[in-house]
Amino acid sequence: MGVGHHEAAWRHPRTEPARLTDVRHYQELATIAERGGLDSLFLADGLALGNVRHNALDRLEPLTLLSALASVTTHIGLIATVSTTYNEPFHVARKFASLDHISGGRAGWNIVTSAGEPEARTFGVRRPPHAERYARADEFLHVVRELWHSWEDDAVLHDRTGGHYADTGKIHVIEHVGAHFAVRGPLNISRPPQGHPLLVQAGSSEDGKAFAARHAEAVFTAQQTLREAQHFYADLKRRLAAHGRRHEDLLVLPGISPIIGSTEREALRLEKELEDLIIPVYGLAQLSHMTGLELTEDTLDEPLPDVPPENEGAQSRRRLVVDLARRDRLTVRQLIARLAGGRGHRVVAGTPEQIADELQEWFFAGAADGFNIMPPLLPSGLSDFVDHVVPELRVRGLFRHEYEGRTLRENYGLARPPSPHARREAAVAP
Amino acid sequence: MGVGHHEAAWRHPRTEPARLTDVRHYQELATIAERGGLDSLFLADGLALGNVRHNALDRLEPLTLLSALASVTTHIGLIATVSTTYNEPFHVARKFASLDHISGGRAGWNIVTSAGEPEARTFGVRRPPHAERYARADEFLHVVRELWHSWEDDAVLHDRTGGHYADTGKIHVIEHVGAHFAVRGPLNISRPPQGHPLLVQAGSSEDGKAFAARHAEAVFTAQQTLREAQHFYADLKRRLAAHGRRHEDLLVLPGISPIIGSTEREALRLEKELEDLIIPVYGLAQLSHMTGLELTEDTLDEPLPDVPPENEGAQSRRRLVVDLARRDRLTVRQLIARLAGGRGHRVVAGTPEQIADELQEWFFAGAADGFNIMPPLLPSGLSDFVDHVVPELRVRGLFRHEYEGRTLRENYGLARPPSPHARREAAVAP
Repeated sequence: MGVGHHEAAWRHPRTEPARLTDVRHYQELATIAERGGLDSLFLADGLALGNVRHNALDRLEPLTLLSALASVTTHIGLIATVSTTYNEPFHVARKFASLDHISGGRAGWNIVTSAGEPEARTFGVRRPPHAERYARADEFLHVVRELWHSWEDDAVLHDRTGGHYADTGKIHVIEHVGAHFAVRGPLNISRPPQGHPLLVQAGSSEDGKAFAARHAEAVFTAQQTLREAQHFYADLKRRLAAHGRRHEDLLVLPGISPIIGSTEREALRLEKELEDLIIPVYGLAQLSHMTGLELTEDTLDEPLPDVPPENEGAQSRRRLVVDLARRDRLTVRQLIARLAGGRGHRVVAGTPEQIADELQEWFFAGAADGFNIMPPLLPSGLSDFVDHVVPELRVRGLFRHEYEGRTLRENYGLARPPSPHARREAAVAP
Repeated sequence: MGVGHHEAAWRHPRTEPARLTDVRHYQELATIAERGGLDSLFLADGLALGNVRHNALDRLEPLTLLSALASVTTHIGLIATVSTTYNEPFHVARKFASLDHISGGRAGWNIVTSAGEPEARTFGVRRPPHAERYARADEFLHVVRELWHSWEDDAVLHDRTGGHYADTGKIHVIEHVGAHFAVRGPLNISRPPQGHPLLVQAGSSEDGKAFAARHAEAVFTAQQTLREAQHFYADLKRRLAAHGRRHEDLLVLPGISPIIGSTEREALRLEKELEDLIIPVYGLAQLSHMTGLELTEDTLDEPLPDVPPENEGAQSRRRLVVDLARRDRLTVRQLIARLAGGRGHRVVAGTPEQIADELQEWFFAGAADGFNIMPPLLPSGLSDFVDHVVPELRVRGLFRHEYEGRTLRENYGLARPPSPHARREAAVAP
């Protein structure tokens, strides 16, 4: 997230908002993350411009950016958000296959269905209903998988003498014809090093969880309390069996925004500095958008009004926000401050030991297989995490000392998907 | 073109076809080209798989690849082919804007309309007719320009104290509604360093030339003879005035495949080596596709049969091929050999001095503003050009000794397009 996950990060003296479109900023982040042995770098995305009057929301297109980061890193995974609602499967399959080749097997795809009305207007369509978006996403996933598998692993021969570059018997048309797409195939690039890129998903609605159980290999999720996180974790893992998948085939990774100080007082001071930089009208607009309420400045010191009945859209995030306000009896202003830190993700301010305690607790309590670390300020919050929290986790035996695998999939501990064609042949063999 | 522009390049001992999907191969090419002070690196593309049985045709997606090359280069322009027929303007505008930011103003877009039937099948549609593809391309160009211009150059304020990230009065919705697209805008990234990326085009049909005269800033073209090249050059330049453009606003860049030897005998030996590696059935299939004929192996030593009346598609290339066969009284086998070198582009075998003579002649005879160099083998043919032809051109005062500009546009000697919004304001001012 640009110069930090806190909404006011761009106003804080420790950031340089002018670097938002400067690739060197992201190369620095990737290098720091890799120094810490982190698994992957994750880029959120959206297909319409947000409120740039009060926030640093212009951004580089994630796939284009990740490819530039691949060149200057060697181990870290590169995960980009791409929408299934406003793209074609062939382009997406091909770009991720290319990124996977370019990075030597470090590509991951965060699959989103683009709930927003502004994104629909970018493409001149009416916003498709929730179920329709997920139906399209489902078919989309089917097609991209077929395309990634359209070349068997040993299809390329390089037989110069015989003049056979590839064994075309091992490259398959897919001839897909479905409700949303008709794609002949094959892909015009060989099978990616990882078989296919890591499939990541972040929706926590009912449709989102069903989709994750079918397709995702990692799930990013916003969870405010340990109890809710445990419930989400168990729920998602339970759904896997119905699709012939094992507990360990999907990793649950809650988001956490660590506000780190060398003392607790220092951490709380940084939290307060950031809170003081929040622009109330911006927070009101964000909160209005999240809740469907029309909140004005004179409601700032009132409790959150009742929200209208839920309609389709970012439902799970709305429930989280309302629950948070009710549980902690927050005024609108206080709620805005709580959300500004991580847009619904958990914010924890403390010393490196205290942050490590939180991660350890959630990990052992069955709430997380790992975490999506969302530093409030970038790059400083990331280097604080890498230089102070990671060593503490290592001392406790909770984090690797160096990269164990070569690919993102290997570092996540996930298997390389076998080629369906190879399986088919194996089944035929005596 | 992967490991070389000659169709049989992958079979020649001087290439390594296994590097076709290895980003380091392309990084090496970019580095060599930059060492020679070349303006730009140009990636062709297609959205369907060709005949990989006999040729190395799997490829990395161009935009993803160029972004990885931006990281390891500092001056060379990065031109990617992207289709207007099978893409959405918002995605294309955004990706090129991102590449332009990432590369510090070195992005170029080769605009194609994807004539092929196989490409249509990739997207489950009937191949749109020629005129329809160009009508879409025209509207596409209108939309992407509006999007690139949707942020004025000074829209971003970075006003931390006042809490104003951007002046939203200088960021404009485009509200485009046309026959093919409806796009609200603005783009979600600030104006690219070059204003917009360099616009390149390569179609030589009547529609193609009309399109180039309206939109293109550089045209890549296949020309076999000086006379035809002069005619094409004059024709294209003449069309500019009707669109309020000047002679120098569009550069004409014929392709040339230089087969370089330190002696003429050495060059001819390399040409022969490559010819001997041609796979006749592959060449027959290519030629059949280009001409619309169904050529079989028993026609190899016959003259080219009469071609059926032209239909829509790659017309200009077909005429070029037929003219070449008739003019030089070639058998099908000989024609295949001539085309194998550059798929219709001019092939010149000789010493560095002889190659320089050819370039010099065309340049001074009003046939070219520059050239698209298409080495038969990569990387060796490129380093031969850079190390032996470029110095010869420098001695003759025909080529720069170092980069003169910072951006691709500056190195091409083309102006940065002004913002239409800024112009509008200037017009209102007293």
